Amino acid sequence: MDRIDGIIQKGAVEPDELAAHENGIVTIEGFIHRIREMTGFSFVIIRTKRDVVQCIYAPEFSDFRWNENIVENCSVKITGKVVASQDAKGNKRYEIQIHNVEVLSTPKEPMPIVINKKQLDNVPLDTNLTMRPITLRNPKERAIFKVQEGIARGFREFLMQNEFTEIRTPKIVFAGAEGGANIFKLDYFGKKVYLTQSPQFYKQMLVGVYERVFEIGPVFRAEHHDTSRHLNEYISMDFEMGFINSFYDIMNMETGALKYILELLKKEYSKELELLQVKMPEITEIPVIRFKDAKDIIVNKYKKKITDFNDFEPEEEQLMCDYAKKQFNSDFIFVTHYPSKKRPFYAMDDPEDPEYTLSFDLLFRGMEITTGGQRIHDYDMQVEKMKSRGMKVEDFESYLMFHKYGAPPHGGLGLGLERLTMNLLGFKNVRNATMFPRDINRVTP
Amino acid sequence: MDRIDGIIQKGAVEPDELAAHENGIVTIEGFIHRIREMTGFSFVIIRTKRDVVQCIYAPEFSDFRWNENIVENCSVKITGKVVASQDAKGNKRYEIQIHNVEVLSTPKEPMPIVINKKQLDNVPLDTNLTMRPITLRNPKERAIFKVQEGIARGFREFLMQNEFTEIRTPKIVFAGAEGGANIFKLDYFGKKVYLTQSPQFYKQMLVGVYERVFEIGPVFRAEHHDTSRHLNEYISMDFEMGFINSFYDIMNMETGALKYILELLKKEYSKELELLQVKMPEITEIPVIRFKDAKDIIVNKYKKKITDFNDFEPEEEQLMCDYAKKQFNSDFIFVTHYPSKKRPFYAMDDPEDPEYTLSFDLLFRGMEITTGGQRIHDYDMQVEKMKSRGMKVEDFESYLMFHKYGAPPHGGLGLGLERLTMNLLGFKNVRNATMFPRDINRVTP
Repeated sequence: MDRIDGIIQKGAVEPDELAAHENGIVTIEGFIHRIREMTGFSFVIIRTKRDVVQCIYAPEFSDFRWNENIVENCSVKITGKVVASQDAKGNKRYEIQIHNVEVLSTPKEPMPIVINKKQLDNVPLDTNLTMRPITLRNPKERAIFKVQEGIARGFREFLMQNEFTEIRTPKIVFAGAEGGANIFKLDYFGKKVYLTQSPQFYKQMLVGVYERVFEIGPVFRAEHHDTSRHLNEYISMDFEMGFINSFYDIMNMETGALKYILELLKKEYSKELELLQVKMPEITEIPVIRFKDAKDIIVNKYKKKITDFNDFEPEEEQLMCDYAKKQFNSDFIFVTHYPSKKRPFYAMDDPEDPEYTLSFDLLFRGMEITTGGQRIHDYDMQVEKMKSRGMKVEDFESYLMFHKYGAPPHGGLGLGLERLTMNLLGFKNVRNATMFPRDINRVTP
Repeated sequence: MDRIDGIIQKGAVEPDELAAHENGIVTIEGFIHRIREMTGFSFVIIRTKRDVVQCIYAPEFSDFRWNENIVENCSVKITGKVVASQDAKGNKRYEIQIHNVEVLSTPKEPMPIVINKKQLDNVPLDTNLTMRPITLRNPKERAIFKVQEGIARGFREFLMQNEFTEIRTPKIVFAGAEGGANIFKLDYFGKKVYLTQSPQFYKQMLVGVYERVFEIGPVFRAEHHDTSRHLNEYISMDFEMGFINSFYDIMNMETGALKYILELLKKEYSKELELLQVKMPEITEIPVIRFKDAKDIIVNKYKKKITDFNDFEPEEEQLMCDYAKKQFNSDFIFVTHYPSKKRPFYAMDDPEDPEYTLSFDLLFRGMEITTGGQRIHDYDMQVEKMKSRGMKVEDFESYLMFHKYGAPPHGGLGLGLERLTMNLLGFKNVRNATMFPRDINRVTP
């Protein structure tokens, strides 16, 4: 009988390990990304997990002979000799003189679009999204989501270092946390249930259990409008922490997380940052402005007429970011004390002026990427606010157990992963920073 | 104007840091878990993020005087002197002589059930689940999900060390990966869409991009039957890897991951393992048996009559685990080469006997916790198999782009987080290992 011991053999050599094998023979695995036939030899670019490496085929290197079945997009195992060479800028690099090519699989058809140039040239976004299984094979496209991995990883690592517990809460829920019409309904064995808009209720309940919790998971919004900044399903990076002194503790934790994320990207994802030519923001301190004061600046400095006194228009978010950049040289700005009317029922009103809340948004390069704040922890205060909004308190019995049996002062936030990625990488459309976007017109692939 | 610098101040002292403060004054934060009044003094047990610590109130320790508003389930900040003492077994521990109690919040009502004993005594599972916001505050209950955090963390860490990329794929999907009736339908702006049964299609597409990918995320099954081992929403830990030599590579990677998880739990979650009195399995090697041979053993050794020749009954899984334990002293056993009929359309048939597949299940302590195997990578072979099953190939155009434009030999698996937790901790019902279970009767809290 066979046994499996779980001892993982080191796989094929990766391109960034070639230096250690100079003039040695190695085996690499990957896709034939590109073949360029020259006179008497060919360049064969192999795409591996995270890199591309140049191999050279020439009859004089070995007895192996190329044949017409070895085409682009074959999966191959290549054995050859590692030799030093130079890239276009004169930097030392390594390439492989091919001694053998073992074909592991062959495509049915050649690529319908060009994916093996530096970037997807002249491919409209809609085509890019429709052909995701192949467009993501372009090194620049796939680098976007490697950076996105790094952002989420940084968020998680930072919070775990700060004694947060990772949670996974249900996506099928009995009630929406944000209310409103943009909620997906689901038939659940005859019961009407919903897809979660936010892990809000669960995060709060679990503050009563672990004090500090976070989740990185999908949330769903039935947005009927088709904009460049909305998705119907996106990844929310949420945390919630108990025993806060004020909602400034939340902003501080977020600022710490963002600093950590940027450092992690520089350290572990420099290959992708370089490929994408990312202009990395610097964070030393993030300026903070009250919503009311921000509106004043918009009127007085930018001469814009206010039409919505309770929230920002997208253009106003851009103006505030422009202001933060010019005034404080910051790519980020916290706006605090949003009007109570536009904040959810669990937001804590400012005891000094209950028309406003102890809440904030974080704006980054022209766009809101986070909403957060202190929550109500007192049972009577919470019930009162729900009633004043015409909510049926009895529908929230399980949620309110948290308040009824002892909740500490607490608060938290939600940070949109795709929006953060989008603005970090300088995209104009959030779909560029979403692997498989869902919007009112698209549920494929 | 305020600025936020993201420099996180060290919070209150945690119980496991008390040793460093012997005879010093510290401040701790947490919930009053339990008050036991004695003659002339009281024990006050404080529950912190991950621990409980014994404090002692007595008038002689300070000028501070207890009052009737300081009750169980208050959130408090306690200042006091750290003194060495002994637990019931004579081990050294530290407690705090209270100098001051600052009450941060007060519950509306006393707990309706007892949560501050060692475990939830005489609380039926259904009550436990209905009252999750408070029952999870019981130290033993919350320890379950701290261990669960560790399991998922170990899976992730191990795969990242082995060059896997973390992915997050859509939960609203255009087609089910597993087929069958147990799929939730959703009205999506007039289109009929589904909740994902598995990230299968996306994992495979992304093997073409990153070669090795994993995801830890929710999946949904519209199970109509109410059993102790099924959930309608659960967390699937999935990976998929390209350039495999055989499906044994998948089993090896899983075995490596399980070993890593068990080590991580022992190292970082020993507090919880001890509290839960977990009998940890040992893995040196996991035995492997073919499905056909397993059925023979069930007939010949266990004298059971086979009714389903294509799959295991739950009782048969138990028998095979019994066999693995007795024969190989293993809590785990891989069963391979399941009949093609009962495996999904993307499973690779065994070229030596196409009635069987290059697939496996992993059984652990009486239950299947993983299904995995090699997948078809050849376009024509995949289309052929879909047609032979009466599937509409045109509905899977985007999925099949992966095969059409070059897919390497690959395979992967899905590992149910709750089932693994359940069997590791020795529960009889998967709901015990699920924070907020969804089943045919339950969508709350």
